Amino acid sequence: MGLFTKDIKTLDDLFVHTLQDIYYAEKQITKALPTMISKATDPQLRQGFENHLVETQGHVKRLEQVFQMHGQTPKAVDCPAIDGIIKEANEVAGDIADKEVLDAGLLASAQAVEHYEITRYGTLIAWAKQLGRPDCARVLQQNLEEEKAADKKLTSIAESKVNKKAA
Amino acid sequence: MGLFTKDIKTLDDLFVHTLQDIYYAEKQITKALPTMISKATDPQLRQGFENHLVETQGHVKRLEQVFQMHGQTPKAVDCPAIDGIIKEANEVAGDIADKEVLDAGLLASAQAVEHYEITRYGTLIAWAKQLGRPDCARVLQQNLEEEKAADKKLTSIAESKVNKKAA
Repeated sequence: MGLFTKDIKTLDDLFVHTLQDIYYAEKQITKALPTMISKATDPQLRQGFENHLVETQGHVKRLEQVFQMHGQTPKAVDCPAIDGIIKEANEVAGDIADKEVLDAGLLASAQAVEHYEITRYGTLIAWAKQLGRPDCARVLQQNLEEEKAADKKLTSIAESKVNKKAA
Repeated sequence: MGLFTKDIKTLDDLFVHTLQDIYYAEKQITKALPTMISKATDPQLRQGFENHLVETQGHVKRLEQVFQMHGQTPKAVDCPAIDGIIKEANEVAGDIADKEVLDAGLLASAQAVEHYEITRYGTLIAWAKQLGRPDCARVLQQNLEEEKAADKKLTSIAESKVNKKAA
């Protein structure tokens, strides 16, 4: 979408734009996760990131399915939000000297990513239902459930060990 | 913090850095909300933004209290994540032609902001407890509860009217 060209005229346009935004975000996350995996020390955290990389690749596929169901060609638009979240994750990771503190920082960054996805999927599902597309909503709901589960799993790893080891 | 200068050596350093990050974020949000208020058409949405502006000013004060409790001078560090989220909010708003669709877009952007704050406060509270500072955790918890309530309120406004009017 061009800046200030007022390309979004309907809720359907906004739905498609936001689908393109989260499609870009999921693809950026598949590129960011391998770096996070390589920096993580705790085996459970590293495994969590590895599992989530596989899930994220599945989210990209599901989004392509939703584009097709909605008669659209899959397309990504720049998403300054996820770019900012990933930039911050890299900056903070680069600033941390201790490996166990780094794990705590990486885990927190991953949760910031999860929360961005949770809010976008929540919005997309509400809009899909409003637009009479419960079929699209159901596919998006599967991505949302996996993001929420990943976030909960990260909280559990943080509280059970990573934060303790970092302190 | 300088890039790659490894200034963060302990979980306490990371806690303070993240406090500086959310302090910057809350201040940016107090600057972004008046624009969102001026663009919103639905009276309940506009009122919701106005109420949250007052709450956000309170969050800044509470963060200053936590800095002081922790023996730190309040200081903000650049937070590329919130900058990206706000940049995206402005770009999408600038792209929307219809006022009722714009309300739906503004509301979704506000929820993206809320979710960023929810994840950061969740992390800060966990770290404060781990660092033996339940007093700091309690003050941060007050901000978290208000962010969660604001997000729920936005979901309710979206589902009860804004999305319907936009469709």
